[in-house]
Amino acid sequence: MEIEVLRLGHRLPRDERISTHVALVARAFGARSITYSGQHDSSLETSVARICDAWGGSASGAPFTIAYEKAFGQFIKRKKRDGFAILHLTMYGLPLPQVLPEAKKAQKLLIIVGAEQVPREVYELADFNVSVTGQPHSEVAALAITLDRLMDGKELLATGPGAPDFRGKLRIEPSAKGKKVARIQSI
Amino acid sequence: MEIEVLRLGHRLPRDERISTHVALVARAFGARSITYSGQHDSSLETSVARICDAWGGSASGAPFTIAYEKAFGQFIKRKKRDGFAILHLTMYGLPLPQVLPEAKKAQKLLIIVGAEQVPREVYELADFNVSVTGQPHSEVAALAITLDRLMDGKELLATGPGAPDFRGKLRIEPSAKGKKVARIQSI
Repeated sequence: MEIEVLRLGHRLPRDERISTHVALVARAFGARSITYSGQHDSSLETSVARICDAWGGSASGAPFTIAYEKAFGQFIKRKKRDGFAILHLTMYGLPLPQVLPEAKKAQKLLIIVGAEQVPREVYELADFNVSVTGQPHSEVAALAITLDRLMDGKELLATGPGAPDFRGKLRIEPSAKGKKVARIQSI
Repeated sequence: MEIEVLRLGHRLPRDERISTHVALVARAFGARSITYSGQHDSSLETSVARICDAWGGSASGAPFTIAYEKAFGQFIKRKKRDGFAILHLTMYGLPLPQVLPEAKKAQKLLIIVGAEQVPREVYELADFNVSVTGQPHSEVAALAITLDRLMDGKELLATGPGAPDFRGKLRIEPSAKGKKVARIQSI
């Protein structure tokens, strides 16, 4: 499955770190890109690019990209025309376990992560309005859990069949007590 | 299993929103309390208390609490003496799927979520140093995934056996397109 993420309503300085976390979770948990709307923020783009430079692209080994899109409504409609199913994360939606079997049938999926006050239009454009617990918490957590379920937990594997390969310059060597980072030499 | 969360190194204003997300994820995903260290922050405590007032306590129906602790090393040692196993989330640790069977045997578990530069002592005190993917992303996501696995995904259920009951004044009625919130009347 091809997964992209759209972050709505980015505001500075309020969302600076939360949107960075959203972007890094998108990358670490299997999406291939993040697009954000709201205020343009070149430091957000730089942060994500810097992580990709050191740690690699997306979990499939393809590059991970970040882009800004002012007109999110048109962006969503364009993705729909391109064959993407739209999954909007909202605490008001249907529980993830209920929606998951249907959502997993999509070949291409756009996951929308809102900030406060998501316009009505987004609920209407979405094929799935999905809640990750019916409690107020965090769009970072909601995105991570959703991607985890779509990836069948394979993003958590360090090695073996199905384990991600980001093709980064740096790679963690899992360790019971220490901090081990390997620098990958290209030949 | 009784789960508590310890957030290390809270700094203002930098961690204001991230620590709030950590606390709300702790609550929504089954922990019964969060303790934080670093800078004292009464607005963090107020935010969490306000959520609990409207939405209820922890997933088991018991109250959810937030507390500040300056001397986190002593706090961790006290919890160990009280029979808690210590699970420290760090990107350098062993992959969650590898550690999970052993961690699930604990009756009481303290999950430690660091900010930057976690002291060596924490790695040594931890029974489990655990990574959620070996990639840089978000302590909010790492905590959510870890709690999700410990709860066997039950925190995602809206109704039925094992579904959480926060006993709040407000409760979401899951909805395919709209926003429905029920106000629970006490009799």
